[in-house]
Amino acid sequence: MNWLDIVSISSSDDETPKRADHLYLQIVRSIREAIQSGKLPLDSRLPTNRELASLLNIDRSTVSRAYLELSEAGLIESHVGRGTYVKSLVETPKTAAASEFGSGPSIGTNAQRPMVWAEKFSRASQTVNSIVSRQAPASGMQDDTISFGGGIPTEEFYPSSHFQRIVSEMVGHGDVDRMFAYSPAEGDAELRDQVIQYLAEQSMPVQHDELLIVSGSQQGIDLVSTALVDENDIVIIEDPSYFWAICNFRARHARLIGVPVDEEGMRMDVLETVLKRQKAKLIYVMPAFQNPTGATMSQARRRQLLALAREYQVPILEDNFVGELVYDGERRMPLRAEPGAQDIVIHQGTFSKALCPGLRLGWLVAPQEVMTRLRAAKRSSDLTTNSMAQVVLARYLEEGLYKDHLEHVRSAYSLRLKVLNEALEKHIAPIAFTSEGRHKGAQRLTWTIPSGGLFVWAKLPARLSAREFLNYAEREGVTFSPGELFFVGADQPEYLRLCFIQTDEDTIREGVKRLGKALSAFFADVSRARSKESVWKKRGSERVLI
Amino acid sequence: MNWLDIVSISSSDDETPKRADHLYLQIVRSIREAIQSGKLPLDSRLPTNRELASLLNIDRSTVSRAYLELSEAGLIESHVGRGTYVKSLVETPKTAAASEFGSGPSIGTNAQRPMVWAEKFSRASQTVNSIVSRQAPASGMQDDTISFGGGIPTEEFYPSSHFQRIVSEMVGHGDVDRMFAYSPAEGDAELRDQVIQYLAEQSMPVQHDELLIVSGSQQGIDLVSTALVDENDIVIIEDPSYFWAICNFRARHARLIGVPVDEEGMRMDVLETVLKRQKAKLIYVMPAFQNPTGATMSQARRRQLLALAREYQVPILEDNFVGELVYDGERRMPLRAEPGAQDIVIHQGTFSKALCPGLRLGWLVAPQEVMTRLRAAKRSSDLTTNSMAQVVLARYLEEGLYKDHLEHVRSAYSLRLKVLNEALEKHIAPIAFTSEGRHKGAQRLTWTIPSGGLFVWAKLPARLSAREFLNYAEREGVTFSPGELFFVGADQPEYLRLCFIQTDEDTIREGVKRLGKALSAFFADVSRARSKESVWKKRGSERVLI
Repeated sequence: MNWLDIVSISSSDDETPKRADHLYLQIVRSIREAIQSGKLPLDSRLPTNRELASLLNIDRSTVSRAYLELSEAGLIESHVGRGTYVKSLVETPKTAAASEFGSGPSIGTNAQRPMVWAEKFSRASQTVNSIVSRQAPASGMQDDTISFGGGIPTEEFYPSSHFQRIVSEMVGHGDVDRMFAYSPAEGDAELRDQVIQYLAEQSMPVQHDELLIVSGSQQGIDLVSTALVDENDIVIIEDPSYFWAICNFRARHARLIGVPVDEEGMRMDVLETVLKRQKAKLIYVMPAFQNPTGATMSQARRRQLLALAREYQVPILEDNFVGELVYDGERRMPLRAEPGAQDIVIHQGTFSKALCPGLRLGWLVAPQEVMTRLRAAKRSSDLTTNSMAQVVLARYLEEGLYKDHLEHVRSAYSLRLKVLNEALEKHIAPIAFTSEGRHKGAQRLTWTIPSGGLFVWAKLPARLSAREFLNYAEREGVTFSPGELFFVGADQPEYLRLCFIQTDEDTIREGVKRLGKALSAFFADVSRARSKESVWKKRGSERVLI
Repeated sequence: MNWLDIVSISSSDDETPKRADHLYLQIVRSIREAIQSGKLPLDSRLPTNRELASLLNIDRSTVSRAYLELSEAGLIESHVGRGTYVKSLVETPKTAAASEFGSGPSIGTNAQRPMVWAEKFSRASQTVNSIVSRQAPASGMQDDTISFGGGIPTEEFYPSSHFQRIVSEMVGHGDVDRMFAYSPAEGDAELRDQVIQYLAEQSMPVQHDELLIVSGSQQGIDLVSTALVDENDIVIIEDPSYFWAICNFRARHARLIGVPVDEEGMRMDVLETVLKRQKAKLIYVMPAFQNPTGATMSQARRRQLLALAREYQVPILEDNFVGELVYDGERRMPLRAEPGAQDIVIHQGTFSKALCPGLRLGWLVAPQEVMTRLRAAKRSSDLTTNSMAQVVLARYLEEGLYKDHLEHVRSAYSLRLKVLNEALEKHIAPIAFTSEGRHKGAQRLTWTIPSGGLFVWAKLPARLSAREFLNYAEREGVTFSPGELFFVGADQPEYLRLCFIQTDEDTIREGVKRLGKALSAFFADVSRARSKESVWKKRGSERVLI
């Protein structure tokens, strides 16, 4: 939680003494807004008086006065020894209702009372809202910013001209009605045939009643979550993992247990320890080119994962979102294609990454009895998938165009990865962070090059915060995803994710150059601040740099 | 619950005495399958020995033996005085695991054990599954069956030629990329502009931050449900109401309270009583041409509804799924367009019914603070809506083609409704049900003609079961939706819903003719059975006809 983002105070003139009465009202307003907008969810902990005073460089009594006011409004509550917490999302009538509407909530007077929505939202909504608000972009973003953030393929690789021809042909042959009628809940019959054939080519024979077409990967996760996950169920997940999967599981109030990822994927020793101790409901993994680390699960780990899942009877959701985007030539089978995976693994694939995102088409493969449940969940969620995109994609696959397309994007993305790596070597590797504190000596930003997918995972030295670095980067006109968004367990502020498929090679080079400038400035500022800090520490100062 | 569908026994030869040992195994197998397939969810109640024996016309000891076996397998449990209930969805190892896999569930032996999925499904999934299984079509369905079931517009009214031209033009002008890129979570900008303009023409000015494009109505309901409804929350709903809305709310384990519908829509006196007694979270209504009754809420009721919702601070979800399909000439404003509705009503509309269903496009209108939550729920559910359909529809609306289309379908559907009514008068009205029991005298099937929408709501006399009648109808090659699917409260078996937009006039006439044949046969059989029954009753027989 970056409290400087939440509590903003402005001192109009630094030369004049700060007016405490004004300041405390600014704090009250900031925190009230953060609570009511969902940035501060119920039960979230506020900084102590001392922490906030130190952070804002103001007197502790000012914070005390603000907290008292918020307490009286019923929004927060302090517990001796435990700290101060958000207690309610709505103010008690004494302040809000009374002042604005002239009376308390007695029934007769409600006739004119506007709806108080803040108290209506579900727990799922509170959770999603507070997670999504973390994703808000920093304020310094400019129009010509170069983005290594997100993970969206760009238009230059969409097979638009093929789609154009296919649509024209279908329209000419009177195939239009199928585009606009409901497709069956399980998906358009021809698209299903094509996906089954495509999966068979990946050594993954699938029966018709084991397949469901979905509106993109995210819906796949949502449906599996609906079918399997109850409140308080344990879901085991790679740590770090995909932001929107974390969000979806958290919205169901599942208990997420993160298992660390190394260069061979999810760590099986940790997984086994977790499974021994707790009865889990689901294991969610991205075995190929994991988001955000880019790690791919080794063959040995895959076998272990399947054996452990069977041993402890825990289903696996395999999210194969970029399985086809291989750059080192070595083709990897999906986990579901391994011997003995059929009755354990729910497999998910998508056309959003390798083809184009706007189709919103993906698929789920699951044992027949699970598929019955997934199909029912699909109908309850949105009845059926858009027909037009399915019909066009079915024809595209039928014409055998996807293979060529994959080769084309593989070589293009592979080149972009190579260029990013070279640019990082040139502009980033030389920049050293030096500090006189515990982490004495020159340290650098490091990164790992994946063998496929969309992402390079990088790490700042000395546990520096990538979120802080992002402010510097955006001022230079370049952006990335701070890694803290993706962690389930302990905060690991020093990671950042760079998506390399979104811009051409020259733009990548320019972006990394900007990143280099930002990094130099960031390192210099932090070094300066840390050396001051160590001076203060030597002086025994109370002040803490956060 | 139709137990004859669940417990099927076959007596190979009616002349020979039924072999009890064989029979009891058939019962065990049927019920085990029903439990494992989800037809019989956890905690569902089984018939008593006497009821089932009477229903199957077999000896009570045979049922006892079957129940004992199921009990020993751990699947069911009997409580004296309370009845017999489904206790577990999986058999205890003694029978299933032991016989098939040679040992109990100790860890070492799990290495070969197939995944037991039945115990993995969420409570939401159990609920949805048991609701959806009620919807399964009867077995007698033939290929040339004429359908008054469902509620799907047919291809002849899709604006395919316009769409064809638009797609060709857009493709020719290089607008293709927008079709295949991600659209923003809130929807394609041009489609949003068009929908806002369309709503303004319905006296419903809407701000940009109050609108969300969704993948059809069902997703709208799903998102509102996600944003507002927690387990055990009370959702007030018209009784009867839309099947998939009921399903969605039930999946969240909301407590549904049905408020009866009369010719002026939801009954406000009942609603007020409910609101006085219980704190509700949401009121779900279809004010125009309600599904399934076809009823439209009067102006007075609309005002009362808004006043009550404000008084008791309960948000309303207005599902305006066929608001534009008016046949009596009188245009109705959406509820959200009423004065004072803006901060209370979440409004939902769709292009699926009046235009074509395969686009999967609809919209939600809500106050800005609610929209923030709905947008987050959308992203967590499926990130964003299919771009292609949005882009094509935006252009279609921009060209002003929707108005003409609406006039065209209004006059076509209006004619079909007229033809259905005439055919019912001709082929159904003359058929009388006569019985010697309590309901002595000639009684008939009755129906109401709506002033718009898709459905005619009909009622069998003497509380006869529409589900039973459906078997007769399907044997004659005609089908409809039994009304019991739509009720939330007490069982009302005598209703049926006829959708009149799906076939041309001649087919409607032929369908009603078949319905008439089926009705004659059904009435005759029931009359016969009831007169036998009354003879048995006079004899003091124990046997009960169910």
